[in-house]
Amino acid sequence: MDVKEFFELSAGKWFSHRTSHHLAFKQSEDGKSDITIEMLAKDDPEVIKLCQQYEVDPALANCGARVNWNGTMEWDEEKHTGSTVLVTVPDTDNPSQGKLLREMGYAEKTPVAGSYVMGDDGALTLTTEYETMSSEERLWFPSPNLRMRVSVLKRFGGFSMASFTSEIRMGGLKPTAETSSQTTAS
Amino acid sequence: MDVKEFFELSAGKWFSHRTSHHLAFKQSEDGKSDITIEMLAKDDPEVIKLCQQYEVDPALANCGARVNWNGTMEWDEEKHTGSTVLVTVPDTDNPSQGKLLREMGYAEKTPVAGSYVMGDDGALTLTTEYETMSSEERLWFPSPNLRMRVSVLKRFGGFSMASFTSEIRMGGLKPTAETSSQTTAS
Repeated sequence: MDVKEFFELSAGKWFSHRTSHHLAFKQSEDGKSDITIEMLAKDDPEVIKLCQQYEVDPALANCGARVNWNGTMEWDEEKHTGSTVLVTVPDTDNPSQGKLLREMGYAEKTPVAGSYVMGDDGALTLTTEYETMSSEERLWFPSPNLRMRVSVLKRFGGFSMASFTSEIRMGGLKPTAETSSQTTAS
Repeated sequence: MDVKEFFELSAGKWFSHRTSHHLAFKQSEDGKSDITIEMLAKDDPEVIKLCQQYEVDPALANCGARVNWNGTMEWDEEKHTGSTVLVTVPDTDNPSQGKLLREMGYAEKTPVAGSYVMGDDGALTLTTEYETMSSEERLWFPSPNLRMRVSVLKRFGGFSMASFTSEIRMGGLKPTAETSSQTTAS
């Protein structure tokens, strides 16, 4: 599986259940979201715009997606809704790894490019280094309708949080043939 | 890292925090345990006894450990304490994988040998096939003092539960030199 196939398999609606372990406090926090992931063409205006923000030649991008979420966290009562755009830019000498561009959130002042590595085992690893912290997330599919993620957050050199997310595809089983081609849908 | 080094790095006392996602019910359940893992020599009577129960030549075993736990689950108030012995028996043609023998619990009538695969990425994967279910668990070390595990349980062909466990070594940082040799301790 290459990163584009991973994105294609991720496309759709998911029920996402995240549990974060706050390591220093030995406490956990649950969050539940409905997530929609939509593939974007390489020449989609949103993909081109994001590349330009990061000063990356849009012709080098190989994959884009828009992610929408709508959920609640356990520790507050507020609704968490949001949306972001992701774009992958493979290394020219090794397309199984490269840069991950992400639309900036409210809290970020400058764009921070992460990196991705698509493993031989079908797991995608995303790493982002911020000024005082870094995050590493591993995503994989136990089955086409079950996606899992584990992430660890390091602050000032020490691990502060570990999160686990199980994501179930909504709308029942997705036929296997659909996972690699959208043209088979009737 | 080979499986023996993985067991050696696992030896010690751990605070273990497990969250299980019951996929069909979209519910999670927390459990917390203190765990002690103690390496056993290949010729330890407990290792030899377990091999004999599984009708495996004890000379083929390369690694043994005793695991003790003492914890509580969120959904009942009972104390969960227990102990088991694990023994790895590598395949003769490929020592990075093999059988995993485990002392039987109360609920099991016949010994069920699992299998292990030690990955190039330092993660240990354990698979056990029961009559009506199967479990796969992946264990790895983000750092020598932080161990993580993700397991999925399949019943009658469908995924029923996913669990995430973060484990923090108790008693503070372990010097790196100790992880590969016990002789450096003063």
